Amino acid sequence: MKLYDEDDATAIGMEIKILSKPELKDPVLISGLPGSGYVAKLGIEHLAKGLNSELFAVIYSSSFPPQVMTKADGSTELMKHELHYWKNPEGGSDLILYTGDAQPVTPEAEYEFADRVLELSSSLGAKNVYTLAAYITGNFVEHPKVFGTATDKETAQMLSSMGVNLMTEGAITGMNGLLIGIAKIKNMKGVCLLGETSGYMVDPKAAQAVLESLSKILGIKVDLTTLEQRAKESEAILKNLEEMKRTGERAGRQPGKDLGYIS
Amino acid sequence: MKLYDEDDATAIGMEIKILSKPELKDPVLISGLPGSGYVAKLGIEHLAKGLNSELFAVIYSSSFPPQVMTKADGSTELMKHELHYWKNPEGGSDLILYTGDAQPVTPEAEYEFADRVLELSSSLGAKNVYTLAAYITGNFVEHPKVFGTATDKETAQMLSSMGVNLMTEGAITGMNGLLIGIAKIKNMKGVCLLGETSGYMVDPKAAQAVLESLSKILGIKVDLTTLEQRAKESEAILKNLEEMKRTGERAGRQPGKDLGYIS
Amino acid sequence: MKLYDEDDATAIGMEIKILSKPELKDPVLISGLPGSGYVAKLGIEHLAKGLNSELFAVIYSSSFPPQVMTKADGSTELMKHELHYWKNPEGGSDLILYTGDAQPVTPEAEYEFADRVLELSSSLGAKNVYTLAAYITGNFVEHPKVFGTATDKETAQMLSSMGVNLMTEGAITGMNGLLIGIAKIKNMKGVCLLGETSGYMVDPKAAQAVLESLSKILGIKVDLTTLEQRAKESEAILKNLEEMKRTGERAGRQPGKDLGYIS
Amino acid sequence: MKLYDEDDATAIGMEIKILSKPELKDPVLISGLPGSGYVAKLGIEHLAKGLNSELFAVIYSSSFPPQVMTKADGSTELMKHELHYWKNPEGGSDLILYTGDAQPVTPEAEYEFADRVLELSSSLGAKNVYTLAAYITGNFVEHPKVFGTATDKETAQMLSSMGVNLMTEGAITGMNGLLIGIAKIKNMKGVCLLGETSGYMVDPKAAQAVLESLSKILGIKVDLTTLEQRAKESEAILKNLEEMKRTGERAGRQPGKDLGYIS
Repeated sequence: MKLYDEDDATAIGMEIKILSKPELKDPVLISGLPGSGYVAKLGIEHLAKGLNSELFAVIYSSSFPPQVMTKADGSTELMKHELHYWKNPEGGSDLILYTGDAQPVTPEAEYEFADRVLELSSSLGAKNVYTLAAYITGNFVEHPKVFGTATDKETAQMLSSMGVNLMTEGAITGMNGLLIGIAKIKNMKGVCLLGETSGYMVDPKAAQAVLESLSKILGIKVDLTTLEQRAKESEAILKNLEEMKRTGERAGRQPGKDLGYIS
Repeated sequence: MKLYDEDDATAIGMEIKILSKPELKDPVLISGLPGSGYVAKLGIEHLAKGLNSELFAVIYSSSFPPQVMTKADGSTELMKHELHYWKNPEGGSDLILYTGDAQPVTPEAEYEFADRVLELSSSLGAKNVYTLAAYITGNFVEHPKVFGTATDKETAQMLSSMGVNLMTEGAITGMNGLLIGIAKIKNMKGVCLLGETSGYMVDPKAAQAVLESLSKILGIKVDLTTLEQRAKESEAILKNLEEMKRTGERAGRQPGKDLGYIS
Repeated sequence: MKLYDEDDATAIGMEIKILSKPELKDPVLISGLPGSGYVAKLGIEHLAKGLNSELFAVIYSSSFPPQVMTKADGSTELMKHELHYWKNPEGGSDLILYTGDAQPVTPEAEYEFADRVLELSSSLGAKNVYTLAAYITGNFVEHPKVFGTATDKETAQMLSSMGVNLMTEGAITGMNGLLIGIAKIKNMKGVCLLGETSGYMVDPKAAQAVLESLSKILGIKVDLTTLEQRAKESEAILKNLEEMKRTGERAGRQPGKDLGYIS
Repeated sequence: MKLYDEDDATAIGMEIKILSKPELKDPVLISGLPGSGYVAKLGIEHLAKGLNSELFAVIYSSSFPPQVMTKADGSTELMKHELHYWKNPEGGSDLILYTGDAQPVTPEAEYEFADRVLELSSSLGAKNVYTLAAYITGNFVEHPKVFGTATDKETAQMLSSMGVNLMTEGAITGMNGLLIGIAKIKNMKGVCLLGETSGYMVDPKAAQAVLESLSKILGIKVDLTTLEQRAKESEAILKNLEEMKRTGERAGRQPGKDLGYIS
C-alpha cells in the first residue's frame, strides 16, 4: 500500500536529498521526531552521535514551520529532517536513524513524510520500524517506565517479555505513531516504545529509559552516561521550539536577557 | 455531477483498497460516521455485526487525524474507513454499510470522501443513500425521537408517514449530511435519520431509536437487544476519541489510572 | 491576468454547472455573497427575485462549509452558489447576479472563486463589476449611509457625485472585496458599495440603502417595498448560518423550541 | 536545491508579472516583508523611494489575505508583492528590492514565495541576499541595536566586525527568515539584519538603525532624514493591517471616527 506514488510530484513541497546510498544488512529504521519532553528526539540524537552514525539523507519541506534556527556560531539554517545509517560491527542488524528539527505542520504532511521515509527505508532493505515517543502522565517520577505497542500481537508479547508495559488502549499521535501504522499496511513490522514523562519539561531520563529498552531488544550497546549532559546543552533551544509550537505564534522567541521576539 | 474525476489523482492522499467486488441486488448505502453521541457509528457497527455483513473495502487517507489507535491485545492500527455488504436473504434490497474511525480533518476531504464513496456505491448499483446522525437537544430523554430529512419532497412525506419527525430548518454538518447532499446532485435519493440525543455522552438509546426507524422503513429485521451492551464496551474508547477531536490537541489521551498523554 | 488556467483542473474541488449560455448586452456583474448583516446577500436576492431574473449557472464546491441545509418542505440541499441573468427591457445594460449560501472556507478558494466567476462573466461580455458589502460601525442608525470605492479614480469620483461616501482607507475582506480587486488586474472596472450597519443583526435597511444607490447609478428600477418583508422571512435561517460561521463549530444548529444541534 | 520545479504549475495560485527584465551587475537581493513593527517593510520602502528604484515585477497570489486595500484617492487595489531594481551609479553592486502588502497566509506559501523570488533573483545574477527583520524585546529604547545572523560563519564574523550584534540562538520566523535559509541550500549567501524594537508599535527608529548597518555593509549612501516622516504617514494604514493580522478576523477594519468594519 502506498498513499503516494513514487513517480508523482509530492502533494506537499518536499525534497529528499540523498547524499549516499548505503549498502545495509537487514537494517532497522529507528525514528524519533520531536514531541513531548523531546524524549524521542533526545533518544535518536544520542544514538546517532553515540554510535558514530553517518548522515546519508536530508529532507527539506515547505511543510515545516516557516522559520530558520540560529546556531551558537552566529550562523543560521533552514529546518530539516536527517537520516543517518550505522553499520553494526558485530554482525547484527544495521540501523537507519531518523530525526529532525520539527514535525510537519499539517496532518497530510505527517502522513506523506511517514510514507516516503518508509519507502526509502524499505528500498534499503528495512522490514522493521521502531519509533520512540513520550507517555505523558503529568507526574514526576524517579525511574520512568517504558510503555510499548506493536503492529502485531506476537511482537507485542515479545515486548512484554522484555519488561515493556504493554499499552492496551489510547492513541499515539504524530509521526512517531503514523510511522508504525503505515509500516503495517506496507507489510513491515512496527514497534513504538514510549518513555514515561511528566510532559512539563525536556526529559533525558525518559529518553534514557527508552534507549535502555531499545538496546536490550535490538542487542545493541549504547553508552548512556553522556545523555543527561547532552540533554542539558540542548534544553534551551528545545524548550524554545516547544513553546513556539504550543503557542502557534508566528513570531520566533529569542531566549536570553531580553526575551526578544523576532520576525 | 462529480466534484472529482475518477481518472484523476485524488486531491487528498487517499487509497480505497477493494478486497472483493460483490454482486448486489438494488443495494442501499447506509452510512454512519462518528459524530455527536456516536449515534451514527454505533448504529452502523451494530448493523454490520448483527447482520453478519462482509467487509469488502478499506479506505486509508492522509486526511484522517494523524494518529494510530491501540487495541486491547497490545497491537496498534492506522485509522481507516470500512465498507461492508449484506445480501438480503429474504429477497429485499441488499445493503452497503459505511463507517470508520473518524471523519476526515478538512472540509475539502469530507466532500471528496462523500463523492468517492457514492461513486463506488453507485458502481455497485446503489440508487438510495441513508445516513444516520445525531439531533442534539442538550436534554436527556427516556425515549429519544427520530428526526429526518430527504433530498426530495415525496420521500420526506414518506418519512413523515413512518413516524419520523420532519426537519424543516437547520443544517446537518459533516459527511452524514454531505453524503445525501451530493447524492442528490448525482441523481441518487438520500435520507438522513437523526436520533435525539443530549450531546453530552455516547448514546446507544438514540442509536437504537434510529435503527428502529431504519429497519421499519427498509423492511429489515435487526436484533437491537445487544446494542446497549455493545455501546458500553466501546464507550471508553469512543469517549476518548471524541475528546481528542473536540480539543484538537495533537497529544493522544490514554485513559486509565494515569490519564497519560502520548506523543 | 489569470491566477488559474482555464484548462487546468481547479486547485480546489469545484464544478460550475452551466444551465444555459445567455446572449447578453453589455452585462454588468453584480455580486453579493453572505457577509456581515447579510447586507450583500439580501440585496442580490431581492434584485434577483424583483427583476424576475433567470438562473443560468450553479456552482458546487468542496470549499464550501461541509453541510447541507434543510428547507421548509422537509427536503435538503447541498450548499451552492448561483448566477442569474436579467435582460434589461429598456435597452440599458443587462445584469449578471451572483450570490450563494456561504463564502468559501479558505482564502485560496475565495481567490479562485472570484477569478473564475469573473472569467465566466467576462466570457459573457461583462466589463464592469459591482459588489455589495457591509460597512460595520457598531451603531444602530435610522438611515444607513452608503460607502463606496472603485478600482479607478474616475469611477470613485463618479460614485462621490452620486451621493456615495468615498472610502479613503481600510480593507474590504472576502469575495465582495476580491472580486473588484481581481477585476482590476483583468482590465475590468470594479465598484464596491457598502451599506452602513451595526454588525449585530441581519440588516434589510442597509441592503435597501445599497440597492437605492445601485439602481440610481445603473439607472435600473427596483421595487424595494418588499425587501423588509423578505428580510424578516429569511432572518431565522440567515442568523443560524451566521452563528455557525462565527463559532466555526462543526455541529449544525437547529433553531426552534429545542435549539437542537445536528451532526 | 529547489522545492518547486520551474516548469510545474505552482502548488499555490501565484502569478509573477515581469514588467521588464533588467541587466544587473552583481545584484544583491534585499528583502523586507511586513512583520513586527513594520521594521523590515519601512526599511525597504524607504530604500526603494530614496534610491529612485525601478519597479520590474509584481506578484499576485491566492495565498495573500483575501482582501483589497482602499487608498486615499478612493480607489482600491488587490494585495501584491513588488520587486524593484536599482543600478548603482558608483560601480558597486546593483540592488533588487523586495517588499509587499502582507506575508502569505500559509507556511507552504511562505516557502514557495521565498523559493521563487530567490530563483528569479538568481536568474538576474544575485548571489547574495539580505533580509531585514525585527528583534522584539518588549522594551522601548532610545537607540535601537542591530542584531544579525548569516548563513555562514565567515559572513557572521564580518557582521560582527561591522558592529552588528551576532545572534547565537533563537529562530527567525516568516519569509524574512526563510529567504536566507533557502538561499543557503541554493548556494547563495544570506544575511539577516534585525532592528531592536518593542513590538508594540510601528518603529521607524528600528528601521533607520537597520538601514544604517545595511548601507555601511554594502557601501551605499541612503538619506535617512525622511524616514521618520514617511513612517508617520504610513502608520495609520500599517497599524490597521497589523491588527487584522493579529486578530485573524475576516472583517476589515476601517479606522476613523466610526471604527467601521467592512465585509
